[in-house]
Amino acid sequence: MTVLVQFAADRDLWSSYEAPLAQALADAGVAARVTPDAVDPATVDYLVTANAAVVDDFRPYTKVKAVLNLWAGVEKLVGNPTLTQPIARMVDPAMTEAMTEYVVAQVMRHHLGLDRHIQNAAGAWRPERGQKLARERDVTILGLGELGQAAAAALGALNFRVTGWSRQPRFLPGALCLAGIDRLDEALSTAEILVILLPLTAQTENLLDAARLARLPRRAVLINAARGPILDDAALIAALDAGDLGHATLDVFRQEPLPADHPFWAHPGVTVTPHIAAETRPGTAARVIAENIRRGEAGEPLLHLVERGRAY
Amino acid sequence: MTVLVQFAADRDLWSSYEAPLAQALADAGVAARVTPDAVDPATVDYLVTANAAVVDDFRPYTKVKAVLNLWAGVEKLVGNPTLTQPIARMVDPAMTEAMTEYVVAQVMRHHLGLDRHIQNAAGAWRPERGQKLARERDVTILGLGELGQAAAAALGALNFRVTGWSRQPRFLPGALCLAGIDRLDEALSTAEILVILLPLTAQTENLLDAARLARLPRRAVLINAARGPILDDAALIAALDAGDLGHATLDVFRQEPLPADHPFWAHPGVTVTPHIAAETRPGTAARVIAENIRRGEAGEPLLHLVERGRAY
Repeated sequence: MTVLVQFAADRDLWSSYEAPLAQALADAGVAARVTPDAVDPATVDYLVTANAAVVDDFRPYTKVKAVLNLWAGVEKLVGNPTLTQPIARMVDPAMTEAMTEYVVAQVMRHHLGLDRHIQNAAGAWRPERGQKLARERDVTILGLGELGQAAAAALGALNFRVTGWSRQPRFLPGALCLAGIDRLDEALSTAEILVILLPLTAQTENLLDAARLARLPRRAVLINAARGPILDDAALIAALDAGDLGHATLDVFRQEPLPADHPFWAHPGVTVTPHIAAETRPGTAARVIAENIRRGEAGEPLLHLVERGRAY
Repeated sequence: MTVLVQFAADRDLWSSYEAPLAQALADAGVAARVTPDAVDPATVDYLVTANAAVVDDFRPYTKVKAVLNLWAGVEKLVGNPTLTQPIARMVDPAMTEAMTEYVVAQVMRHHLGLDRHIQNAAGAWRPERGQKLARERDVTILGLGELGQAAAAALGALNFRVTGWSRQPRFLPGALCLAGIDRLDEALSTAEILVILLPLTAQTENLLDAARLARLPRRAVLINAARGPILDDAALIAALDAGDLGHATLDVFRQEPLPADHPFWAHPGVTVTPHIAAETRPGTAARVIAENIRRGEAGEPLLHLVERGRAY
């Protein structure tokens, strides 16, 4: 029996995913037809989405066993009241690697103050002495899911003093783990470098507001590789302008692409990266999708199911 | 019996080393007088040097059991024909950590192309797709001493494909190790990112000349954290101007401070860092010096003795 999979994501993604999905489904032993076309919703067994509005109303998809998202973030799917089917988010090992590399690169850059040399057009020889070692540098990671755990491990291996904060208690080797909203200020208070890897939920929206930013040590550096709305843009700029915050490196924004007139672009204390920290890779992501379809057909539990109560 | 140690290094270093050396010698159980003053050379038991010309003529130091250098590089001491006493170079664990961090930071920066975002004043949202993962990136390290080995381990842990090259055969877990001048071109041929951590000797001076630079893959990036004269400056600039080489990040130079009119400063393909990759730290280095004096007094073999035949 052939299962019908509708690839309900941006059309330009289809060219990247068509061949890897066909291969991965064949490798998983699943007989499937995958189509990017609008088909009769009542005939679709699985929907592949990319958190975009190719499908707005999920109610006609009466037979769909799961909505399989290509990205890690599922806030738009979860916010759609017509979507009552199970949702699986993407946990792509290659994406986790890419995110870990982005976080390590940005943390090392700020740890060693590389910018002053990269931008030193003046030609001044100004060696700094007494540079801190990583084992003297406190880094706090907000969010200890797949991505936060991987970043914590990599930074720990580089000797950084890692504090992790998450909603639910976690235990990571070599890191101080704090849990729950009551411990957030404590986690922020030591963060010379703060890395945000939280999911976007009703609880994390605007989590980093003026009051929370004020808990950071003076001249702290903030790296947001999660979702834009977790951070209060105006409070961030005010903290930078006041000299309280040292720098912000941001990969995600409330509106993407970041509008050309947004103050982040021109602010000397902000580095904008255009949502490139970690992209899902078709080769590895297709295998995760195929494995979930195989599980769905075999009646086995799906991987990475979204718990609707907590929205990620 | 009190041993006499002359601190024959730059006077401004003395303020950093006086207290740590006194503490380390006391901790090692050595009764010593350490002085930065010019004393009767014939009475000195140990000389502490910093590869600078505070002492030019070592012949009057007839009683000296060892010359203990504060820096890893000993090329200036080895080049002094009056210095026939044993020389110990510094292997400071904190310096190794600092160098590893510098190498990781610069490799990650070039691996992910951070500069285009750090310098993006134009405010252009240009996400790049198909970014390589570290496990798809070849990094070659020239020099597999303490520093090269530590860098290889850290880069390997971050998933980079590491090739190491050294004069003598070395075996490092997870890295392809090539040895001897006959294998150098092979080591260069895959180096998307090349890290130079060689000692400066007659064999390594001008090792990276025009012919060797031409062996690198097109648009390779070069990082020199070893010694300036290993690299042919003019050949480097020619390779950058021709577009063959992608970038050079240099921490060391033939003349330091790098003269204000040197073309490296203004070249868009060169990042200058002012010899800050790894400084010796008084706290840890003083313990290495004290341990060697303890060994000398106890008749035990000294640590990190320079083999005069190979000059490092």
